Amino acid sequence: MKAYSEMSKEELKAELDGLEKEYEKYLAMNLHLDMSRGKPCKEQLDISMGMMDVLNSKVDLRCEDGTDCRNYGCLDGIPEAKQLMGDMMENHPDNIIIYGNSSLNVMYDTVARAMTHGIMGNTPWCRLDKVKFLCPVPGYDRHFAITEYFGIEMIPVPMSPEGPDMDMVEKLVAEDDAIKGIWCVPKYSNPQGYSYSDATVRRFARLKPKATDFRIFWDNAYGIHHLYDDDQDYLVEILAECKRAGNPDIVYKFASTSKITFPGSGIAALATSLNNLEDIKKQLKNQTIGHDKVNQLRHVRFFKDIHGMTEHMKKHADIIRPKFEMVEQMLEEGLSGLGIGEWTKPKGGYFISFDSLEGCAKEIVGKAKKAGVVMTGAGATWPYGKDPKDSNIRIAPTLPPVNELKTATELFVLCVKLVSAQKLLEG
Amino acid sequence: MKAYSEMSKEELKAELDGLEKEYEKYLAMNLHLDMSRGKPCKEQLDISMGMMDVLNSKVDLRCEDGTDCRNYGCLDGIPEAKQLMGDMMENHPDNIIIYGNSSLNVMYDTVARAMTHGIMGNTPWCRLDKVKFLCPVPGYDRHFAITEYFGIEMIPVPMSPEGPDMDMVEKLVAEDDAIKGIWCVPKYSNPQGYSYSDATVRRFARLKPKATDFRIFWDNAYGIHHLYDDDQDYLVEILAECKRAGNPDIVYKFASTSKITFPGSGIAALATSLNNLEDIKKQLKNQTIGHDKVNQLRHVRFFKDIHGMTEHMKKHADIIRPKFEMVEQMLEEGLSGLGIGEWTKPKGGYFISFDSLEGCAKEIVGKAKKAGVVMTGAGATWPYGKDPKDSNIRIAPTLPPVNELKTATELFVLCVKLVSAQKLLEG
Repeated sequence: MKAYSEMSKEELKAELDGLEKEYEKYLAMNLHLDMSRGKPCKEQLDISMGMMDVLNSKVDLRCEDGTDCRNYGCLDGIPEAKQLMGDMMENHPDNIIIYGNSSLNVMYDTVARAMTHGIMGNTPWCRLDKVKFLCPVPGYDRHFAITEYFGIEMIPVPMSPEGPDMDMVEKLVAEDDAIKGIWCVPKYSNPQGYSYSDATVRRFARLKPKATDFRIFWDNAYGIHHLYDDDQDYLVEILAECKRAGNPDIVYKFASTSKITFPGSGIAALATSLNNLEDIKKQLKNQTIGHDKVNQLRHVRFFKDIHGMTEHMKKHADIIRPKFEMVEQMLEEGLSGLGIGEWTKPKGGYFISFDSLEGCAKEIVGKAKKAGVVMTGAGATWPYGKDPKDSNIRIAPTLPPVNELKTATELFVLCVKLVSAQKLLEG
Repeated sequence: MKAYSEMSKEELKAELDGLEKEYEKYLAMNLHLDMSRGKPCKEQLDISMGMMDVLNSKVDLRCEDGTDCRNYGCLDGIPEAKQLMGDMMENHPDNIIIYGNSSLNVMYDTVARAMTHGIMGNTPWCRLDKVKFLCPVPGYDRHFAITEYFGIEMIPVPMSPEGPDMDMVEKLVAEDDAIKGIWCVPKYSNPQGYSYSDATVRRFARLKPKATDFRIFWDNAYGIHHLYDDDQDYLVEILAECKRAGNPDIVYKFASTSKITFPGSGIAALATSLNNLEDIKKQLKNQTIGHDKVNQLRHVRFFKDIHGMTEHMKKHADIIRPKFEMVEQMLEEGLSGLGIGEWTKPKGGYFISFDSLEGCAKEIVGKAKKAGVVMTGAGATWPYGKDPKDSNIRIAPTLPPVNELKTATELFVLCVKLVSAQKLLEG
């Protein structure tokens, strides 16, 4: 098919007429489909049901070191949970704190602590006139929500398939000591599914920020969330690289089992330098006596070790890979050559990123919503919800059953074509 | 036996010689006993083991409203958990947020939020020159640790068997708008086991603080933790009383199942007015997608309803009541009439509060420790760990097995006598 931009006004008008008729059909279908969030589907949850059986009233709930997991204590996690999460995160167990059910909560608390108490003896951020964060875009809306909530100014930094624009990152952090952090989803990024290149990680580890309390917020949310067993992205391990670069304290690394076992009932972890850990524990001991050790034990008994977890992740991949491939194929078949959109083809993670013509994203998402398909709000992938080009749309293919996903994607493709044709006719 | 104060110097010297010889015997026993913290004992944990069986891989993990508890969502808790905790806290489920595993964490977060964002539109506390909290004494060390961590000035308010000195509380909060809160453990208080009288609760509900963002931090940690089925303290429900008094937003009420099921693996809850809830949820949605719903479901399925929980609490009482009674009897037998100490006889909660002669508490606890019995540090029940009279000691009888508790209490009585005799000889 011809690119829309090469069509005559008449051709485009005829195309639009056809699209509008088709759209009417979808309106009549009264759909209620959800492609908005990175939620696992029912089949993915089912593969972790065995975790509900590993602990029962006959099982000894003491962990390796003899601690009764049913009682108070153990601020930073039971040894075997540190081992498992350490293996998953590629960090030494000594560098790890096991938290509660949400790594987002850990990130929030990390920013909150810096606001009220500062990082390693530095001035609390709440006492500074200005605090800024770098935000690779498109990025994760819940990261941006945390920094916005704390009144932290967010500076967008463009993403490429190699990661954030490191020339810009290096320059900005070296110049401006109000810049205290950067949000990163380094592997299978949200929403593009890009993994930072070795060179990018190297440059992160070698940053020379003007602010001594600058930290990289390294949210390795999809570290083992591959779609393909034989074609995986590998990421240079950031803590080790920072240590080698003489910059050991510059990074906080976050992960959780939310998309491994049950979102909301998993375990979260932070990995960082011993200096940072000491700083954090001074606060943490005032916040809690300890996190849920029984759930830590449940996870360890279920997976046994990192090999068990790796095998488990293959089951997830088998369930969601066909969904990603179907969406990509439908985008290819429906939009290829039309010059009205581009999209990513990730090898892991939870999202496909779609870029429409400028000024079309909000309308595309709006049209899909009107016909009963909820997508992530256009703009959500940018700080303050403001995508300056109004072009980025996050597609979350994991939750809907295949047949629903098919319908939703058909409608999405239709909406892209419809809104693009209108735009070009107006323009 | 004669009161120590009525003994002649020679009598006291003879007494001390005997005590010192006895103390030598304990030193030789090489004890390792712990009466320091309010931790349930193994038998108490065992009665909740059935909770490990109610969920398994064959069980439907959807809650009442159809939500799959295994997936993301539900910021404020599943309906049946709100119902159960509402019945436990004597509040409407609509007034409740279910949190994670620790009410201490909820209290910490509540203070942290007030620091960075203020309460209901008021100035964030971190922007104020001075923030103060009233601290009924003796009180709970972990409360004081939170306010100390945030640099909040703590003002001790004396406790009586009726609760805090309300004349003082009313006067201070009316005069000083830097006073933003008060820490309360209103029922079976920590450490005295006192329950606030009806008049005290009434006066709390009718406070007229100068600061519009003053809040009562009502930590009802032992709301259903009775030692006797037929002799319980009843507390006027504070939210309802505040509403009746035209003061609906003045209180945050906290509770958890930490000492009902498993400490560290229970569920926590906050009850407060709808205005406060709205204020809190604005923050909470940035902090987490939701707490552990599977664990909420586990608790509900285990207890079924508040009657199940009430029956469960009787089992706890049956286990720990003999420990309280034994300690009280031993204190009575060992110290009564000597005029060197007074102690409380609570009908619930986790502690007995002991007051020694002035200037003796630190040394008593030190002597016990030297002989291998760890008590809560003397001073811990006061802000900044500073008991001006150096007399209050918190006794936590629940954790040790009865035989160990017996030995530990014998030693404690001995140390009280020994240090008191020394003190009186010096004085």
